[in-house]
Amino acid sequence: MRGVVMYSAGDVRVEEREDPKIIEPTDAIIRLAATCICWSDLWPYRGVEPADHQVMGHEYVGVVEETGSEVNNLKVGDFVVGSFVISDNTCEICQAGYPSMCVHGAFVAQTIGTQSEKARIPLADGTLVATPGQPDPDLVPSLLAASDVLGTGWFAAVAAEAGPGKTVAVVGDGAVGLMGVLAARELGAERIIAMSRHPERQELARFYGATDIVEGRGDEGVAKVKELTNGLGAHSVIEAVGTQEAFEQAVNATRPGGHMGFVGVSYDVKISGIDLFFANIHLHGGPAPVRRFLPDLIQLIWDRKINPGKVFDLTLPLDQAPEGYKAMDERRATKVLLTL
Amino acid sequence: MRGVVMYSAGDVRVEEREDPKIIEPTDAIIRLAATCICWSDLWPYRGVEPADHQVMGHEYVGVVEETGSEVNNLKVGDFVVGSFVISDNTCEICQAGYPSMCVHGAFVAQTIGTQSEKARIPLADGTLVATPGQPDPDLVPSLLAASDVLGTGWFAAVAAEAGPGKTVAVVGDGAVGLMGVLAARELGAERIIAMSRHPERQELARFYGATDIVEGRGDEGVAKVKELTNGLGAHSVIEAVGTQEAFEQAVNATRPGGHMGFVGVSYDVKISGIDLFFANIHLHGGPAPVRRFLPDLIQLIWDRKINPGKVFDLTLPLDQAPEGYKAMDERRATKVLLTL
Repeated sequence: MRGVVMYSAGDVRVEEREDPKIIEPTDAIIRLAATCICWSDLWPYRGVEPADHQVMGHEYVGVVEETGSEVNNLKVGDFVVGSFVISDNTCEICQAGYPSMCVHGAFVAQTIGTQSEKARIPLADGTLVATPGQPDPDLVPSLLAASDVLGTGWFAAVAAEAGPGKTVAVVGDGAVGLMGVLAARELGAERIIAMSRHPERQELARFYGATDIVEGRGDEGVAKVKELTNGLGAHSVIEAVGTQEAFEQAVNATRPGGHMGFVGVSYDVKISGIDLFFANIHLHGGPAPVRRFLPDLIQLIWDRKINPGKVFDLTLPLDQAPEGYKAMDERRATKVLLTL
Repeated sequence: MRGVVMYSAGDVRVEEREDPKIIEPTDAIIRLAATCICWSDLWPYRGVEPADHQVMGHEYVGVVEETGSEVNNLKVGDFVVGSFVISDNTCEICQAGYPSMCVHGAFVAQTIGTQSEKARIPLADGTLVATPGQPDPDLVPSLLAASDVLGTGWFAAVAAEAGPGKTVAVVGDGAVGLMGVLAARELGAERIIAMSRHPERQELARFYGATDIVEGRGDEGVAKVKELTNGLGAHSVIEAVGTQEAFEQAVNATRPGGHMGFVGVSYDVKISGIDLFFANIHLHGGPAPVRRFLPDLIQLIWDRKINPGKVFDLTLPLDQAPEGYKAMDERRATKVLLTL
């Protein structure tokens, strides 16, 4: 089969990979219907993380082709959506809502590589969720978004306790930030402040439910959020960037007693203990427990109540994946969908 | 009146101070019934914070002597307990449960100085809570504890979502940590692990409800907590120290999706963003919104359901405050009560 392999930073290729096979009786083999490039795929591309002939991709939708002898909830032909973390969905941590940290969990990235024609999904019963039927083609991008970027934005909004009567500020106008806007609206937030300085992303943020746009960053952005919230800060703040500046901006934009959800991967972020102490806020974040939300998100998409697929602004065939990486790296695209 | 003044680091004196007067119509003057020395009073004592003829003390119980013209909820003769933060109890932040960050708030420490015979309490209607009547003398230490150390330990347990079915680990065996143990028990926790290596504090922790004692610190302590929790970590962890090691120990002892409440003042703590990300926990802390809990805590004390006053292990008259500072600095006392 064809699949994406990153030879080294910046050198990404589509080449022939071995067809996946059932190894464990709990595995399933899926044929991908669509896959995509994540912002985090740019870390090895940019040399922030090592890359040495790494298989790539961790977002996926597809059709079950084969199941191991212990797979009971799925059958060949099912259209499925999975999370970027493998999870048994039965352990104490999964049952408490954190399949992202399943005791038998593993990250799909760099081990399975779903930027490919097929993939072996371990713990298939726990990891994959079947859609109610075969989806109309126009629903596929949205279902694919549920696999990571929607699930992650949704988690951020839940972690930030977005809901009725709340003002939600969203730091980050990338795909995850935009999905955070969508989630905040679906969760019933009264007011949603998108922090963005890019006209086309501002427009998308408004499409997804933003009621206010703040262009300022850092202290200036914080001051503007406070101005919009009676001097207090937002009840709920989503951090969807992962830099020091964005993290601090989010902390400072949250009112005392408020909730901040962070899903930007915070590699070089150092949080000042004393600043966090005197902020008096709630903080929750990390790898999103997407599997927890998948059944609800799939239903919302199936019922055409949300359209997260609109976040993909470039669609390419799998064979042109290298161009997709380049477009995202050069910020010509927010999120690239790869067709099969 | 007599009051404690810190001239400079290590030089603390009891001397004549001017009697407080009503300044604002919302003020009340109280005559102290008892006061105490807080661990945080040792910062200026040890030179960690500057001290230049600073008035000291922020924990207090006493009797109302005089009220300003706009004080409506209190009358002369009321026995009152107040928090270490002045709060109006009416602003949006107070009403949301965070009087610790009241929009008209101020810290009692270093401005009012309640290690004294009398004190002026601003925003008295919001800040002070009257007890149901004049307390029996043996209840006074417990009511005094409610003013900070009990309220802070209680907040830590609430922030850590201690409750039925939960295993709670408490990092720190000082007065606040011990009150965290008490609070966890009152909130219905199933199992309470006190992390302590001092036999007399272990005993007190067991008195307050600890079911297990872990002596190890750092990675060793974390490993022991995991051993006691099926390899997962505690559902709820209280951090009541404020050092880098204690903070990391608390993060690592919390299971994914679990809750950590931190009330140790984290001056030099730097939290690794990526470690917090992959911990996938909830974090909440800061100055405790003690005022929120005071009515309930007073009632529990009044009904003799809890005995937080036992945390005071040295009682001295106000005039011997310098000896009290010395005893705490040299760790001969956990918490010193000053009588008047």
